[in-house]
Amino acid sequence: MDALTATLTWLDYAAVAVFGATGALAAARRKHDIVTFGFFAAVTGVGGGTLRDLLIGAPVFWVQKPAYILACLAAAMAVWVFGSGKGRMRVLLWLDALGLAAYCVVGAAKAASLGAPPFSAVVMGTLTACFGGVIRDVLAHEPSILLKREVYVTAALVGAGVFVILQMFEVAGFPAGLAGFAAALAIRSGAILKGWALPGFPGRGTPED
Amino acid sequence: MDALTATLTWLDYAAVAVFGATGALAAARRKHDIVTFGFFAAVTGVGGGTLRDLLIGAPVFWVQKPAYILACLAAAMAVWVFGSGKGRMRVLLWLDALGLAAYCVVGAAKAASLGAPPFSAVVMGTLTACFGGVIRDVLAHEPSILLKREVYVTAALVGAGVFVILQMFEVAGFPAGLAGFAAALAIRSGAILKGWALPGFPGRGTPED
Amino acid sequence: MDALTATLTWLDYAAVAVFGATGALAAARRKHDIVTFGFFAAVTGVGGGTLRDLLIGAPVFWVQKPAYILACLAAAMAVWVFGSGKGRMRVLLWLDALGLAAYCVVGAAKAASLGAPPFSAVVMGTLTACFGGVIRDVLAHEPSILLKREVYVTAALVGAGVFVILQMFEVAGFPAGLAGFAAALAIRSGAILKGWALPGFPGRGTPED
Repeated sequence: MDALTATLTWLDYAAVAVFGATGALAAARRKHDIVTFGFFAAVTGVGGGTLRDLLIGAPVFWVQKPAYILACLAAAMAVWVFGSGKGRMRVLLWLDALGLAAYCVVGAAKAASLGAPPFSAVVMGTLTACFGGVIRDVLAHEPSILLKREVYVTAALVGAGVFVILQMFEVAGFPAGLAGFAAALAIRSGAILKGWALPGFPGRGTPED
Repeated sequence: MDALTATLTWLDYAAVAVFGATGALAAARRKHDIVTFGFFAAVTGVGGGTLRDLLIGAPVFWVQKPAYILACLAAAMAVWVFGSGKGRMRVLLWLDALGLAAYCVVGAAKAASLGAPPFSAVVMGTLTACFGGVIRDVLAHEPSILLKREVYVTAALVGAGVFVILQMFEVAGFPAGLAGFAAALAIRSGAILKGWALPGFPGRGTPED
Repeated sequence: MDALTATLTWLDYAAVAVFGATGALAAARRKHDIVTFGFFAAVTGVGGGTLRDLLIGAPVFWVQKPAYILACLAAAMAVWVFGSGKGRMRVLLWLDALGLAAYCVVGAAKAASLGAPPFSAVVMGTLTACFGGVIRDVLAHEPSILLKREVYVTAALVGAGVFVILQMFEVAGFPAGLAGFAAALAIRSGAILKGWALPGFPGRGTPED
């Protein structure tokens, strides 16, 4: 359980920082100033976890631990200094994938540890992993990453599902979390590299029917 | 009070499922895959009630009762199977009207049962009834249904108002809820069928003045 | 402490009303009806403070005090009656500036009074001051005021920072709050009048690199 806690804490900081970096990268696209960089980094970085904590009725994790916000600001600063090279969107995609993989496990684990039923824990992991990016895109007034055709929600769903199911079979927290993280990352990587997509809705999809 | 509870539970599931279906229909417009269907259905279905519970400080209703999420997923599946015919937008409009009518009563009743003053209960019913659709539209990156000229918020306001006022006059929960539901549905139906609209702002409305 | 409480209450009502007015002005741009005016006014007016209360785990301030909603509705009514003249966008900008200046202090003070560390109190003041406008813009489906190049977040950050730092040096609540309010308003005024802006991100900012 101690290893699980340590892993969760580590994953939590990592996910917050990489999501924060994606927020700063979104700010970079519009050439915002350093304060707006920090704002986008903070909101994106802690947004998913904040939603998770509100939903499960836990104290919001960063309010008493400002280090999370500092991690976001450090990520924003790093983007400011190093973020002007080529391939920035590609970096954003991969950081977002890492954040997604970390958060689906962290979200599910925290929900389960507070007594949510397994199915709810999976839902919570999925929702909160996806909401970091959603909040960023809504704030930046861009089409949400949810609206891309590539597999995205599915990766979070599988990651959270693997973790929760392994936990139900009494697998310890650390390997279960690692397996969930790896599963989500593998699926999202396939989506980024190979354009993996599930079959879309087979019916008519035009707006005005 | 028992009848009220039963009615509320029934209305709650019904509203969650029909709002969920509207989320899936929004996903269908862009030909998303089945997982994204489920995600949109879940977020739209439970979004309004989640906001209500957060605002009144109640435990979020679906976390301990995954059946609500399953209802959303069933609605998503139904849309996937049956949703490709003509007239889908019309179906979405009507399902949204049903969800709106149910949620304005459910939201007001739950707020009142937790001690909110009558005026706050009306506001809560109105806000939460409208937010299901708002969250769906923001996620789908479409203009919010709030921005249409037809009567929408008004229907929820009247439905919640009828319910709360009847309750103040000691009408039992079931008939009061039914009256509120019917009032909201009637007004929204008029808006859909006849284009009912209140007079718009009479002043200048251009963006740049 | 009593003066602080009174100041906070006064600032809170004032911020809610002016933010509410900006919501109604956004509704006026699209010539919405009076109910939608009220809805936008209420959501915008209480949105920032609602987020603050959810984040710090306090009861949402307006649920037990409907007078806040009534203040928003009064603001909406005032906009309906007086809002059709020229220069409306300018009025919206200035009201938004007043709301921003008030909320950065109110948010930081309420967070600090509930035991948030100073750094978190500054973050909370900044976030909640900015979120009133963000929610309005998202609902109205307009580009967020965050995306403008002028100084906006910075003003809230400085205002909250001045207040929290003065409090750490044992300055009483009233002068500290006034100083924070004045600092935020001065900076935001400079942005509106003189186009003050921090240097933008120096790297490449095109979307597709």
